Amino acid sequence: MGSMAEPGVVMVGWPLSMFDMRVKMALAEKRIDYEYLPEDLPTKSPLLLELNPHHMLIPVLIHNGKPICESRIILEYIDATWKDKAPLLPSDPYLRSQAAFWGDYIDKKIYLGSRKIWDSRGEEIQKAAQEFLGYLRVLEGELGEKPYFMGESFGYVDICLMSYYHHFYPSEILGNFNVEKDCPKLFAWAKRCLERESVSKNPIDPNEIYVAIMTARKLAGLED
Amino acid sequence: MGSMAEPGVVMVGWPLSMFDMRVKMALAEKRIDYEYLPEDLPTKSPLLLELNPHHMLIPVLIHNGKPICESRIILEYIDATWKDKAPLLPSDPYLRSQAAFWGDYIDKKIYLGSRKIWDSRGEEIQKAAQEFLGYLRVLEGELGEKPYFMGESFGYVDICLMSYYHHFYPSEILGNFNVEKDCPKLFAWAKRCLERESVSKNPIDPNEIYVAIMTARKLAGLED
Repeated sequence: MGSMAEPGVVMVGWPLSMFDMRVKMALAEKRIDYEYLPEDLPTKSPLLLELNPHHMLIPVLIHNGKPICESRIILEYIDATWKDKAPLLPSDPYLRSQAAFWGDYIDKKIYLGSRKIWDSRGEEIQKAAQEFLGYLRVLEGELGEKPYFMGESFGYVDICLMSYYHHFYPSEILGNFNVEKDCPKLFAWAKRCLERESVSKNPIDPNEIYVAIMTARKLAGLED
Repeated sequence: MGSMAEPGVVMVGWPLSMFDMRVKMALAEKRIDYEYLPEDLPTKSPLLLELNPHHMLIPVLIHNGKPICESRIILEYIDATWKDKAPLLPSDPYLRSQAAFWGDYIDKKIYLGSRKIWDSRGEEIQKAAQEFLGYLRVLEGELGEKPYFMGESFGYVDICLMSYYHHFYPSEILGNFNVEKDCPKLFAWAKRCLERESVSKNPIDPNEIYVAIMTARKLAGLED
């Protein structure tokens, strides 16, 4: 099955970013072809500054010449614009509010929780890791016995959390935990997601993330 | 014009919170009657812990027995549920993404920017105040010559920002700036919003906010 040709779709991103991966997954689910312009972070291109002057962050989706910023807002835009296939969000207002709640929870807890592990020293790392594991267990409880977060179909909440999956590895090493052992249902869900072409076609190498985090820790004086 | 009787609508809030005010404005725009259950913060009731176990924060909207949390998610829910009157968000995906962008910007910059002024000491206060004024000027630029943020009609972005308006006063006093003088278009917009019954019917006294902030500063050792 081929992709839909969409000459007006451009994505400005950075291949190692979880937020970049989110947009790629959503476009792949919708089978939208796009031009990809990678930024060379931490340098920010004049294009990025023009497209997102108030945050200066990737990803930015440009559709028909108009920029859309912030990854979860981009997911909603993609779903509303190409609504005929692979719906990512339910139309029922209550179910939609619950999807938005978990997307927001993931960004508040999993993003900041990861950063806390990566930016800590000594015993503080283990404390941050236990907190992080607490957030993963909340998510595992919300998943329960369902194949995907919102039920039978892969969608918005799965994309929001799967985008972090390859970033768990440095947290597991630093924090001395193991998602497979500590959150078996979440691990099985991730394996299920990885079987989808939209998730596996743009993989991030967990080792590359680990090296990047450890280099940043050394520069910050958190490692010898 | 009377309100619609909606026996299944309950709001759990705290009258001094900007996030509480947001939900009240949206329900008033839609003319929805509701039962209001004020929390006695900083104590959190067993009801709040049950309704919002993962964040334990107000406001929570309960509709037909089901809780919805996070103020901007509640605004979207209200708009989608009672969509026949006073639309708060446009249906066009691009315009909708722009409204979501500014709602998110307001919470990131105006909320955290206010907190930085309130939590700083000495010269740091003036630095935080200048940053804050920079964010207000971005918003003033986005407003431009339009009567409301999204054009001719009061809506989602106006509600997101107006909810902070009564909290500007302690920032102005501490930071030595004046919204009326420094952001005249934003000031005129706020006056315009205050003429709406939905905005003015649940006023917050800026002096009460000022006293609360100064008391918190004294307790934190930031004031003599």
